[in-house]
Formats: sequence, C-alpha cells, structure tokens
Amino acid sequence: MPATAFTLKELGPLGAWAGKAFGGADLGLSGCEVSFNRFNAGQTTPFVHAHKLNEEVYIVVQGGGLFYVDGQELPIQEGSVVRCAPAAQRALKAGGQGLTYLCIQAQAGSLTQASRGDGIRFEQVLPSWAQAQA
Amino acid sequence: MPATAFTLKELGPLGAWAGKAFGGADLGLSGCEVSFNRFNAGQTTPFVHAHKLNEEVYIVVQGGGLFYVDGQELPIQEGSVVRCAPAAQRALKAGGQGLTYLCIQAQAGSLTQASRGDGIRFEQVLPSWAQAQA
Repeated sequence: MPATAFTLKELGPLGAWAGKAFGGADLGLSGCEVSFNRFNAGQTTPFVHAHKLNEEVYIVVQGGGLFYVDGQELPIQEGSVVRCAPAAQRALKAGGQGLTYLCIQAQAGSLTQASRGDGIRFEQVLPSWAQAQA
Repeated sequence: MPATAFTLKELGPLGAWAGKAFGGADLGLSGCEVSFNRFNAGQTTPFVHAHKLNEEVYIVVQGGGLFYVDGQELPIQEGSVVRCAPAAQRALKAGGQGLTYLCIQAQAGSLTQASRGDGIRFEQVLPSWAQAQA
C-alpha cells in the first residue's frame, strides 16, 4: 500500500494525449491499474487479448470507433463504457475522429463493498468553501 | 462474478452528463465501482469523506476546480488524476467552467498483477480489420 495519502498526476487536456500511458506506478495505485490512451484515426490495438484475473472497464472520452469482443464488433463513441470479464477476447479500432479512452483493470470479484457501504463522512471537517458558509 | 462476457453502457457526450451516475450495477462490475459526475460552476461535494477499504482515483475530463485532501486544496483541471488512499479526507469544488470527472473505487491492495503479467494474447483471433490485412 502506498505510504502517502494522495498522489496527483497531470495528463494535460484530452486533445493533447498521445499513445498509451499507465497511471499505476506514478500514482501508487494498489487496487486497480488505469491507462490513458489516444489512437489516431484508423489505429488499432496490435492484437486481441484477454486477462487471467482482471476485469476491464473501457471508457471513451473523445472520438469513437469499433470495439471487438468475442466475435462481435460494437460501435463506440464518446460516453461509451464497456465492461469485459477476464476471459472476453477484445480489441479496438479508432474511427475517423480518432479514439481517446481510459482502461481500468481491477481483479474480478475483489470489490467487497462500495460507496455508502464503504464511505465515512466527516461533517466537522470543512474545506475553505464550506468554512465561508458555516 | 457477472455471467456475461461483456456489458455496454452509453452515457452520452461528456457535455451532456448531469449529476452523479454509478456504473457498477448496470455494467455488472465486480472489481471496481465507477461514477460519472458533472458539477455545475461552483458546485461542491456535500461533505468531506474517506473510505474504509477502498482506494479512489479521480480523473477530470472537462472543466476544473479545487480538490480538498487532508487540509490541502489542489487546483485540478482537464487531465488531472488524483489517487486517494482510503483514509484520505477529500472533497471537491467545481470552478467557473464546471467540473466533469470520473471516480473509480477499488479495494486498496487488491490488485495482484496487471497488464503484461495478467494479459493473454490471441494472435490467431482476428477482428474484421485484421482479417482484411491478413
């Protein structure tokens, strides 16, 4: 587990992303890995792949294209989110506007609780903006 | 674990997002939870919170604002990525352009391998675009 309470990484504006950057090492992630990806028009993943343990979530934030999964090809666009179970065989191709997307990897079945069930509220801790209103 | 190999959810263009939407239930996520968030200019999270088990990763995809964490307030903008350890006390405020961001929750320490270590290549499985080149 990382020793620090938080880490910050600046990727720059979405339109300036290029290639593939993994965030896990820089950020000290221990629960998931996240990659930040920009494909030029027509660019494809170099091969079809699946995973041993990890579920993946793909989130398109600019452009679009095609998402190949287990013999199907789904049109994807800004705002498309695709979950792949570990064994799903997947590949991507950018459309004419290119494709900017995030990919999150986390171990399938590892989440035991989330959101309200995992959260702790601190009603007495006030950021500057809440102090002004208090 | 979900029975299906993949699931797809369409959020629509980033500029059309409103409020907070969790993706986990619709997508059948078992390794992480992901929320999709749009704050109007000046909008804030209603309270400071931390987590019991889950690490969080915040990714700004439009606009910007301030990220409060453990008494510090970091300026954030498109392309900022912040990891919070479970115990980090956090809150957000949108700037004048509003704030569109993703938040990923995954159990701290749960990732045992990722990327090349977890991937399986299928060189003989070809999407339509690779068949045309083969």
